[in-house]
Amino acid sequence: MGFLDELRAVVPVLPASAAGDRSGVAGDGLPLAIARPDTVDGVRAVLRLASAHGVPVVPRGAGTGLAGGAVAGRGELVLDVSGLDRIVEIDPVDALAVVEPGVRTAELDRAAQAFGLRYAPDPASAEISTIGGNIATNAGGMRCVKYGVTREAVLGLDVVLADGRLIRTGRRTLKGVAGLDLTSLFVGSEGTLGVVVGATLRLRPLPGRTLTAAAAFDSVTAAARACAELTRQRREPSVLELLDGATLEVIDRAQGTDLAARGGALVIAQADGPAAEEEITAIAKVLAEEATWSEWSGDAESAERLLFARRMALPSIERFGRALIEDICVPRSRLAEAFAGVSRIAATHGVRIYSFAHAGDGNLHPIVGYETLDAAVRRAGDDLFALALDLGGTVTGEHGVGLLKRDWLAREAGPEVLSVQAAVKAALDPQGILNPGKAF
Amino acid sequence: MGFLDELRAVVPVLPASAAGDRSGVAGDGLPLAIARPDTVDGVRAVLRLASAHGVPVVPRGAGTGLAGGAVAGRGELVLDVSGLDRIVEIDPVDALAVVEPGVRTAELDRAAQAFGLRYAPDPASAEISTIGGNIATNAGGMRCVKYGVTREAVLGLDVVLADGRLIRTGRRTLKGVAGLDLTSLFVGSEGTLGVVVGATLRLRPLPGRTLTAAAAFDSVTAAARACAELTRQRREPSVLELLDGATLEVIDRAQGTDLAARGGALVIAQADGPAAEEEITAIAKVLAEEATWSEWSGDAESAERLLFARRMALPSIERFGRALIEDICVPRSRLAEAFAGVSRIAATHGVRIYSFAHAGDGNLHPIVGYETLDAAVRRAGDDLFALALDLGGTVTGEHGVGLLKRDWLAREAGPEVLSVQAAVKAALDPQGILNPGKAF
Repeated sequence: MGFLDELRAVVPVLPASAAGDRSGVAGDGLPLAIARPDTVDGVRAVLRLASAHGVPVVPRGAGTGLAGGAVAGRGELVLDVSGLDRIVEIDPVDALAVVEPGVRTAELDRAAQAFGLRYAPDPASAEISTIGGNIATNAGGMRCVKYGVTREAVLGLDVVLADGRLIRTGRRTLKGVAGLDLTSLFVGSEGTLGVVVGATLRLRPLPGRTLTAAAAFDSVTAAARACAELTRQRREPSVLELLDGATLEVIDRAQGTDLAARGGALVIAQADGPAAEEEITAIAKVLAEEATWSEWSGDAESAERLLFARRMALPSIERFGRALIEDICVPRSRLAEAFAGVSRIAATHGVRIYSFAHAGDGNLHPIVGYETLDAAVRRAGDDLFALALDLGGTVTGEHGVGLLKRDWLAREAGPEVLSVQAAVKAALDPQGILNPGKAF
Repeated sequence: MGFLDELRAVVPVLPASAAGDRSGVAGDGLPLAIARPDTVDGVRAVLRLASAHGVPVVPRGAGTGLAGGAVAGRGELVLDVSGLDRIVEIDPVDALAVVEPGVRTAELDRAAQAFGLRYAPDPASAEISTIGGNIATNAGGMRCVKYGVTREAVLGLDVVLADGRLIRTGRRTLKGVAGLDLTSLFVGSEGTLGVVVGATLRLRPLPGRTLTAAAAFDSVTAAARACAELTRQRREPSVLELLDGATLEVIDRAQGTDLAARGGALVIAQADGPAAEEEITAIAKVLAEEATWSEWSGDAESAERLLFARRMALPSIERFGRALIEDICVPRSRLAEAFAGVSRIAATHGVRIYSFAHAGDGNLHPIVGYETLDAAVRRAGDDLFALALDLGGTVTGEHGVGLLKRDWLAREAGPEVLSVQAAVKAALDPQGILNPGKAF
């Protein structure tokens, strides 16, 4: 009996179909098949068989990744865990949740709200991406400027290793130093070390108040300077987003909004919790200094409209063409230089670049719009990576390395760090069957 | 030329002397010698030689550890890095510091204050312990209920590996997902994977206001219930400490205070930042419900006296005898049960246990006082570990495993997780020369 026959005997197996993600990176041909277990034992059975047969396995959630981490090609088995989709428990006293990896991120957040809590990490994809995928890429989002990224929300994990063994890392307590921090090691490892089948997640108190300020600026560098000034003045926004003029225009075109009428760049800031009013007042004052238009309103509906527009930035760009999605992160003080560098790169290569940023983290998404992925687009992409490293930053703040950034990871990390990463990988997956060719 | 001669040719070497820490755990005999390099190159040279000769190396900072992680015995070389003690840089705009491992934790905090910033993790040992040791144990402290433990403050590390290679992990940016999170893997690894020779640390804004409330209770379980109620009501103190009656009495005796006159247990809470007043008012109200005495004062001097007394808890106990120091952490909802369990264990074995807790984290320090480490003391210690696991907790919240808790780590983690930890260790230190026998 061949591998696929043995597999069909233990878990549901769907016929092969293209397994891509939202990065635009394609695999080389069709994968072998798609295994879709809906229990932890099913995942273990798949990995035991794959291990025995030496078949490479590409773990997959909702397929919303932006770096090619879930792309599968010829000879590879897709392991789709989106069927493990239960919220197992919400503990309102200890403020934690236990979930399976296929739970949608926004769904968990809504379930927590019933208890006066929330799941803080909020990638723009929260409605369509899964917790498992968020853990695989250590996803960020708008609120992480105040509440931290996915890693800060993960207390413990259930992980199936390449050979089918199941381990439980971490704990239900807030602190703990018993043994190596395997939990943090699995977070952000893009499915290369194990398959997450359960997660114990920290929830945060739902803030009583959230207030919003918005300001428009003549130029994106003026907007970036204002954001850096907020850091310098030790302000603590819960959201601090910056959109450039090109992005405002494309959102307007796709969503029927009129953002670009306000100015050449837009900053959206929020403050929450008991100090929300004092904080947003101080933030609005800093923003107003160079702004050409500003608004500070407690009007939740108008704030929600602004944030919705922000979340639609990428889908709006993709509506009118293809997009090379970058995700560089620089020290916060270098944000204005980063935006200036992006403009220079666009001019040099004659390409269109839309830029928006989680400005409070220095995390910038320059999106190169294109029709065909020609040499100019690729060179612009490479220059953006180089810009990030030149400014003391990283080639990926929250999307992961996947297939898209492997060469650049090598540049950023250097050969010694890469060799240590490879040694850790080999220790956990000696056959190298888990998501081969991804991340490093 | 033998190992020691070669060593003396490249770095300062001190004659062997007892290398213990504050845990009371002793090594078996004198170590080989103490290498005391004061440069990164010196550390590399020591590890290259140790590797070549297969000599086990015990990295060491100030020796203030509480679990035996820096204890060295016969045939082992002590690698004392406390001579690498420079604050290399404080970047006030990006709010980060670059330091060498021998910098005292409180010294960095004071240096940051000049820029309106602070280094948030504040173990009780902050005046005498070093950043390197804090990183090795992922140290906690009083403020971490709001600001997180050492791991949350470490952005990047310079680490010398067992073979002398130097790697740089992490980054200066707030976010980054390029490659496996080696930074988090090294934090809390107790010198078993590499020797930290540099750290890039996140600083936090110095809060404008810090307000303090204190309350006394009839019993420690009533005090613990009040603390759990704060969690349930989603309060966010920046400090939440609980001391039992035995601890209050011993502090009074050692420091000349009169804490025990207030009641059978004391809770000290702080709130900071722009919402400090609203937060401390709400906290004081919850505490007052069951309290026999309470005080809410903006008097910084009285607050500092209370916190100083708290920091002197362990030194006060140690002044009157020896101490078996435990560091269990339980889900916050189980805190009252944990204290009740501690009392039961003290009664069962006829031993004296002093208890104090970072109550906001569920992190409890039951200290067994003794003159000779007899069977009753050991059994009480074991029962405390078992209590932690029974309540869904961990055997160490912030002190580390060291020599003291190895057997209990095995119970907590289980054989599969231990085997994964051993595989990671073998990948980074194939000869097993780094701090052998510690942690796992």
